[in-house]
Amino acid sequence: MNKENLLVIKIGGNIIDDDGKLDAFLRAFAAVPGKKILVHGGGKLATRLAEQMGVEQQLVDGRRITDAATLQIVTMVYAGFINKNIVAKLQAAGCNALGLSGADGNSIRAHKRTNASVDYGYVGDVDSIDASLAGDLLDRGLVLVFAPITHDRGGQLLNTNADTIAQEIAKGLSPQFATTLVYSFEKSGVLLDAGDEGSVIGRIDPAYYRELKEKKLVFAGMIPKLDNAFAALQSGVGKVIIGKAEELGQLIEGQAGTTIVHA
Amino acid sequence: MNKENLLVIKIGGNIIDDDGKLDAFLRAFAAVPGKKILVHGGGKLATRLAEQMGVEQQLVDGRRITDAATLQIVTMVYAGFINKNIVAKLQAAGCNALGLSGADGNSIRAHKRTNASVDYGYVGDVDSIDASLAGDLLDRGLVLVFAPITHDRGGQLLNTNADTIAQEIAKGLSPQFATTLVYSFEKSGVLLDAGDEGSVIGRIDPAYYRELKEKKLVFAGMIPKLDNAFAALQSGVGKVIIGKAEELGQLIEGQAGTTIVHA
Repeated sequence: MNKENLLVIKIGGNIIDDDGKLDAFLRAFAAVPGKKILVHGGGKLATRLAEQMGVEQQLVDGRRITDAATLQIVTMVYAGFINKNIVAKLQAAGCNALGLSGADGNSIRAHKRTNASVDYGYVGDVDSIDASLAGDLLDRGLVLVFAPITHDRGGQLLNTNADTIAQEIAKGLSPQFATTLVYSFEKSGVLLDAGDEGSVIGRIDPAYYRELKEKKLVFAGMIPKLDNAFAALQSGVGKVIIGKAEELGQLIEGQAGTTIVHA
Repeated sequence: MNKENLLVIKIGGNIIDDDGKLDAFLRAFAAVPGKKILVHGGGKLATRLAEQMGVEQQLVDGRRITDAATLQIVTMVYAGFINKNIVAKLQAAGCNALGLSGADGNSIRAHKRTNASVDYGYVGDVDSIDASLAGDLLDRGLVLVFAPITHDRGGQLLNTNADTIAQEIAKGLSPQFATTLVYSFEKSGVLLDAGDEGSVIGRIDPAYYRELKEKKLVFAGMIPKLDNAFAALQSGVGKVIIGKAEELGQLIEGQAGTTIVHA
């Protein structure tokens, strides 16, 4: 039996912080046919709000600590302002979107990160997603929009990395759907030359990835992203695409960005 | 065919602002069997956040105007912080809650209020609810938690009265379910003597309501609430109960508060 296609698309702060780019992206996203899920990150609004509220951001080794006041802010900004504005804009574009945090319908279960040398505060690592709920909502014609907030089933909300959520959703839904996971970021794709946006590698399979790493042809900062992409493929995701959100249509068609495939 | 029962319960700021009361209410709500929907209002957090952010609240005739900055705040607080914390706490109590704004799944369509002599800003009057989506989610075993934020289908979120949302949801779902609408507020019910919490009127039907009004036995401030309750009954709602959220179990059983019925 052929599985139906499902797109899981993650957009980051560079799009969310720019009203014009966000509107253009959401119009393009609404126009993509078929079943789809959007996972959004945060952007600068949470930091600005913390400044306005006089909540000092604690950083350890350059990483933000989610204390109780920061958790309140990210819950308000991610699950409230950003999520509901994206949903309303998608509705206006004729796309029947429904916004969710991981607490809603118990859709993403996580636990507070405790095994790190640093206490990151209310940060969640994903345990599992409810693929049955997401599948039913998609089958009802809804387009899901996930905010990067999860819960621990004990009443605690947790700030959670949006890349990880996108990956876990794509993995969790792969038994039901032929999934494509799209990570959008600032660059046009995986570049052979970090300074040259024209040097996008169109397609990477495991053999080519080994070669790129051996010859040190891939930018070091891309290695964790690519390792995650191959891990997603190992867990049943059909393909992973990395590229610019502004080129969504071309990314999905394989005409832009980098497509990462099994073989 | 007997319709299945559905409870639509509205809680206001007096419960939301008190962590202990809210937790006790949510445990009681989780324990109520059967299909149910919770509609929550705002509370003082939005006002406190506006102060912290330096957003001045405009009041006209004592009523708050929802300008763009205030809409951002209420979207963050109502649809983000309050809604997701209620959902997480219900999940912890074993109740599979899913939080929604009116934009989610296009569940509550509204229009910006324009026919008033005062411009209230981004305030929405409800046009219709999607009873089919709500019914399907309830049939899937989900408990819905609505934040008082709606949308105009043109991409605009709107601040909307939670009492009205509760009433519209109960009306919209009455063709599918035998609905009971519960309005919780500070008092024990409709009182014969506004100063005496022991003077709760247990049951009001249209004939008794006429008598109470003619004899001026009902506190003037209650008349709009009662008029709304009878309007809901006219629109198919089975009964309306008014009382204290702290007495939820007894309210539902008719052992506390005021039950308003057809005849």
